[in-house]
Amino acid sequence: MAGGSTSPGRSVTARALAVLDAFDADSPRLTLTEIAGRSGTPLTTAHRLLAELTAWGALSRRADGRYEIGRKLWDLGLLAPVQLELRQLAAPFLLDVHTATRDTVHLAVREGTQALYVERISGRESVPVVSQVGSRLPLHATGVGKVLLASAPDEVVAQVLAAPERATPYTVVDPARISRELADVRRRGWARTAEEMSLGTASVAVPVRVERAEGGPVVAAALGIVVPTHRRDLARLVPVLEVAARGIGRALARTTPFR
Amino acid sequence: MAGGSTSPGRSVTARALAVLDAFDADSPRLTLTEIAGRSGTPLTTAHRLLAELTAWGALSRRADGRYEIGRKLWDLGLLAPVQLELRQLAAPFLLDVHTATRDTVHLAVREGTQALYVERISGRESVPVVSQVGSRLPLHATGVGKVLLASAPDEVVAQVLAAPERATPYTVVDPARISRELADVRRRGWARTAEEMSLGTASVAVPVRVERAEGGPVVAAALGIVVPTHRRDLARLVPVLEVAARGIGRALARTTPFR
Repeated sequence: MAGGSTSPGRSVTARALAVLDAFDADSPRLTLTEIAGRSGTPLTTAHRLLAELTAWGALSRRADGRYEIGRKLWDLGLLAPVQLELRQLAAPFLLDVHTATRDTVHLAVREGTQALYVERISGRESVPVVSQVGSRLPLHATGVGKVLLASAPDEVVAQVLAAPERATPYTVVDPARISRELADVRRRGWARTAEEMSLGTASVAVPVRVERAEGGPVVAAALGIVVPTHRRDLARLVPVLEVAARGIGRALARTTPFR
Repeated sequence: MAGGSTSPGRSVTARALAVLDAFDADSPRLTLTEIAGRSGTPLTTAHRLLAELTAWGALSRRADGRYEIGRKLWDLGLLAPVQLELRQLAAPFLLDVHTATRDTVHLAVREGTQALYVERISGRESVPVVSQVGSRLPLHATGVGKVLLASAPDEVVAQVLAAPERATPYTVVDPARISRELADVRRRGWARTAEEMSLGTASVAVPVRVERAEGGPVVAAALGIVVPTHRRDLARLVPVLEVAARGIGRALARTTPFR
């Protein structure tokens, strides 16, 4: 996010992109004044850029005068590989798991020190969860996150262990204990959490491994399920997840990035 | 899509947006030369704009040197109201219909003279369908399209009737017959098609009506289901769709655009 100060040296493209950067999940609808402030753009420049971005369809102007992300950016976003090559391909497998369990099912990939939630299937009878598609949550506090962290490069693990945030009173933040848990995840092939990200829910997750033509398998994603904590049968869900994860892994192996 | 000629008079923002415009569902991965050609941008300018767009995250560069849509645009696209206010809210209801029927379920909105597919749930045992999220299909040839066309303004109906494209030998393209079908849809409250968009599949669809505080109900979307043509029980699916459509309609009525 750009700061609040104007930067006359920025290129025109950078200014237009800074206007788009003003929008985020917490602020999907903004007024002209808010956009100018958040992007550090003079009001008249912001007004002109908004007109260009709106005419193209990147933004649209609501009846109440506020701006929001337009359909053109939604369209372009659907072309991103995370959508085109992973989400679309994995969705039927997540649906299989949901059909078998009725619980909330997630697919996440690692993005730096966070788990990025790429797809979610959640029925109206499923337990409410904090994550939605596009959410980023800490690697050490979620089931899918622990799976992703267990296969991450050492420097990523070191970075997470250096400052693990606490999300609930039950979040494991002791670096030695997280390290032991990651060793367990590597050994048994799945991770679990209990109220570490949000109270009242537990989760279990497995890696999505992709066999490559060279260099052995890689963990491309993590598949997880979230249930209410009163359920005592978390381990029973592991085989269900494993079957789906293997299906996703085989489908991914046929896509260009892994061939 | 911009033409192939360079236009030195275009603003820098317009040039950057033209670079993004080079990408579409048929061409999600492009080389520098292709982008320059499709956007009508000189190669050196395209190169500089690509560097800026890639640094920001709008695009990313693949190992093979081609460019694709980056995660930043995917993130921003998730903030569009079609996603935030419609898709996310409707998804559990589509899942209910899929759980009850195991068929492919669609949610579409009208965009000009086309049906824009906003959400889809499709299992691995469902019949293969041409539409996916973000697809646009003709209003007169699809179940959801006929529902949307039946409640569209007269000028939209006139525009569609003026030049209805043929997608299969069974597509209804006779304006008088389309008009009669639309009258039927308005009267009985649902639409059906048989092999009009793709051979081997039939569909049935109902409107998602939203009650507004003032001005009566509006058709905000259409909910449809696609089955193999050998199935003879299409009409049986109408009540299932209607229950889900009412649920979506009530949920939508609580969102800002309709309050």
